[in-house]
Amino acid sequence: MQTIALNDTLSLSRLVYGMWRLADDLDTSPGHVQRKIEACLDQGITSFDQADIYGDYGSEIVLGGALKAAPHLRAQMQIVTKCDIMLTSEKFPERRVKHYDTSAAHIIAATENSLRAMSIDHIDLLLIHRPDPFMDAAETGWALDGLVQSGKVGSVGVSNFKRHDWTLLQAAMSTQLATNQIEISLVTTDAFVNGDLAFLQEFGVKPMAWSPLAGGALFSETHSHIFGALERIGSAQGVDATAVAIAWLLAHPAGILPVIGTNDLARIKKMSDATRVDMDRETWFELYEIANGHEVP
Amino acid sequence: MQTIALNDTLSLSRLVYGMWRLADDLDTSPGHVQRKIEACLDQGITSFDQADIYGDYGSEIVLGGALKAAPHLRAQMQIVTKCDIMLTSEKFPERRVKHYDTSAAHIIAATENSLRAMSIDHIDLLLIHRPDPFMDAAETGWALDGLVQSGKVGSVGVSNFKRHDWTLLQAAMSTQLATNQIEISLVTTDAFVNGDLAFLQEFGVKPMAWSPLAGGALFSETHSHIFGALERIGSAQGVDATAVAIAWLLAHPAGILPVIGTNDLARIKKMSDATRVDMDRETWFELYEIANGHEVP
Amino acid sequence: MQTIALNDTLSLSRLVYGMWRLADDLDTSPGHVQRKIEACLDQGITSFDQADIYGDYGSEIVLGGALKAAPHLRAQMQIVTKCDIMLTSEKFPERRVKHYDTSAAHIIAATENSLRAMSIDHIDLLLIHRPDPFMDAAETGWALDGLVQSGKVGSVGVSNFKRHDWTLLQAAMSTQLATNQIEISLVTTDAFVNGDLAFLQEFGVKPMAWSPLAGGALFSETHSHIFGALERIGSAQGVDATAVAIAWLLAHPAGILPVIGTNDLARIKKMSDATRVDMDRETWFELYEIANGHEVP
Repeated sequence: MQTIALNDTLSLSRLVYGMWRLADDLDTSPGHVQRKIEACLDQGITSFDQADIYGDYGSEIVLGGALKAAPHLRAQMQIVTKCDIMLTSEKFPERRVKHYDTSAAHIIAATENSLRAMSIDHIDLLLIHRPDPFMDAAETGWALDGLVQSGKVGSVGVSNFKRHDWTLLQAAMSTQLATNQIEISLVTTDAFVNGDLAFLQEFGVKPMAWSPLAGGALFSETHSHIFGALERIGSAQGVDATAVAIAWLLAHPAGILPVIGTNDLARIKKMSDATRVDMDRETWFELYEIANGHEVP
Repeated sequence: MQTIALNDTLSLSRLVYGMWRLADDLDTSPGHVQRKIEACLDQGITSFDQADIYGDYGSEIVLGGALKAAPHLRAQMQIVTKCDIMLTSEKFPERRVKHYDTSAAHIIAATENSLRAMSIDHIDLLLIHRPDPFMDAAETGWALDGLVQSGKVGSVGVSNFKRHDWTLLQAAMSTQLATNQIEISLVTTDAFVNGDLAFLQEFGVKPMAWSPLAGGALFSETHSHIFGALERIGSAQGVDATAVAIAWLLAHPAGILPVIGTNDLARIKKMSDATRVDMDRETWFELYEIANGHEVP
Repeated sequence: MQTIALNDTLSLSRLVYGMWRLADDLDTSPGHVQRKIEACLDQGITSFDQADIYGDYGSEIVLGGALKAAPHLRAQMQIVTKCDIMLTSEKFPERRVKHYDTSAAHIIAATENSLRAMSIDHIDLLLIHRPDPFMDAAETGWALDGLVQSGKVGSVGVSNFKRHDWTLLQAAMSTQLATNQIEISLVTTDAFVNGDLAFLQEFGVKPMAWSPLAGGALFSETHSHIFGALERIGSAQGVDATAVAIAWLLAHPAGILPVIGTNDLARIKKMSDATRVDMDRETWFELYEIANGHEVP
């Protein structure tokens, strides 16, 4: 599988395995998680996407269990995680409302906590999970720079940032932000025209895409017209609709890295089908227009 | 008539004659088209706006017929044309959906085709017709730079671009983009406040305005309140409502070049009336507020 | 009270007294106005916000009456005023429609007029009141630079500008714009996420906030859920809801300077309570979410 260089020190596999629901699986044993990781690695999917909050603060711990049991896996993996969302949770009974925290103290503590939870001593890529309307860019930038300098974090980036969030934070940092992980799918196509992709392309930054299958909504009745087109295109190439939906993102010149999450071992084994789909320009527009419900202007 | 320098090598006449409907006229003979061109030139309107798709890929050919019959006209004209829209058309039966193509191969082929269709060896200004959500800026920019370097195209620009589209493409080019042709009229006033004009003014770029009369909608019942005001102002100055509507654009400090299309020889002869209208600041706002249906805040 | 440096030459008090309704008070005598100014100064509120149009062009004159009667006050005050809105008014019977005027001639004349009305020879900070869709940035920038160079105006800034308005005008000036006075309150929270605050933070510019209490709407039935939360938080700290609403702005890292207008001497005396409120991050988000009617995403 192709790898994509986010900067001089970090390359991710073109497809990234998302661990959003890792803790929701019936089987969260180290052995089963190890099999998922190995199923990814078998296809060249070497990059894994986490966040401190996934699985109500449980997903990093589940991954940590597997890495403790099979520490040889770590060297073959790039681990991405995120911080700044503060969920209300039984684990934090004193917390009153969901909020964000981009203070230096929290970012540093969250990083230490993620390292401990995952039983690792290095995070390859740490992302600010959501733009924080209360962000002090100087403080946040200083914390992120410091984590890179300390070696605890290899690269830093953001998620769900608009251009103004990006330029505000970047202007306060010496490290270059490595990526912006944003929502892009056939159900959520705004990024192609509203500037969210354009500014990343202009800055030479490769985006990651969360929910590239719209969290499963692509397979719902509401979107059956899109799914029908995906199936038609896929069946002509011997792949399923999912592979075509992902290939639609891969074809875009921005160099999008889709984050695909599934707990189904069989589906993991088929993820790389997406990289083998032919997606010419006109077919890309055909899907885009079916998804939008109208022609381009 | 005033000319406006778009850059060091290209000046257009303040009013541009739009050939959007050239192929729709009952008489598309070379002689009749020549009379239209001469009616423009008589008033100092020396710039002519085309696109490969106008008239279902027919308008450039109609113009080419006239230029073949009267080749002396060419030296007095600046010819603007556009590419990247791929219409579904009986002329392209294999095309499945309307789409855009900003690939280098297409831009170069479309330029060659426009040169051939218009029987000319040089396009003064080539525009990317619509922002392409699938644009590879490096490739598109390389193609545009190459066309300028080859001498086949004098200057290049864009149409309907937002700031993020512009900066993405410009950052990938060595040539400076010469203009952005956008929709501006009393019916479509967003550009005055949403940044579409502001960024062009900031970059020192003169905009062209398409549909400055809202494609005729300005004369419809819906907009009779605007038309009434235009007539009132016009009659006090001995010009018609159309001239006032165009003058409203000319008065703006951005240096807007309206593209006016009409197949009516008598109206062509009256186009330059717009340049003789007095339009003071308060009258400009009066029309702006009537058009918007409310006072400025 | 804390002061905030807008640039090397101008610092304002953290809270600014707004004179929007100064001329609407029953008592506009020099003595009564002097008592208001002294009530502010007593708390360290040394900055006063005016505009030529306030009180139907009357508020600057009311202030001027007090400064004529008690000229010693001037040296303790920073006076902010604004121009470019052209109200229809019995005072300008020839004016047909509300509009803006950012021409050099008007800006210079308006400044002279404000100096005369307030009986002062120096304006500390002159703001363009509203972005003008008809602005010629070169001309407006030249006029503002000139007023600073002449010494009649200490610093210049803007109000209600979007990023594109700001960069357009700033690019045409040698003086740095000192602030952008925008609407921010618990009822109008867009600026925290739409880039209006982010670009100011990125450029190192401190914003002023107009209507920080939403012009009183915060105390209306519609917003009783917000008011209830403010009262709850305030009563725990021995201050009233108003102080908490202002403290919510003060807590933000952008360094917001709220402009508070009241003709009630007793309320003026309590304004600085806002600076004594504790506002931690989670409480900030609690109010933000109550105000927005939903959690952060």
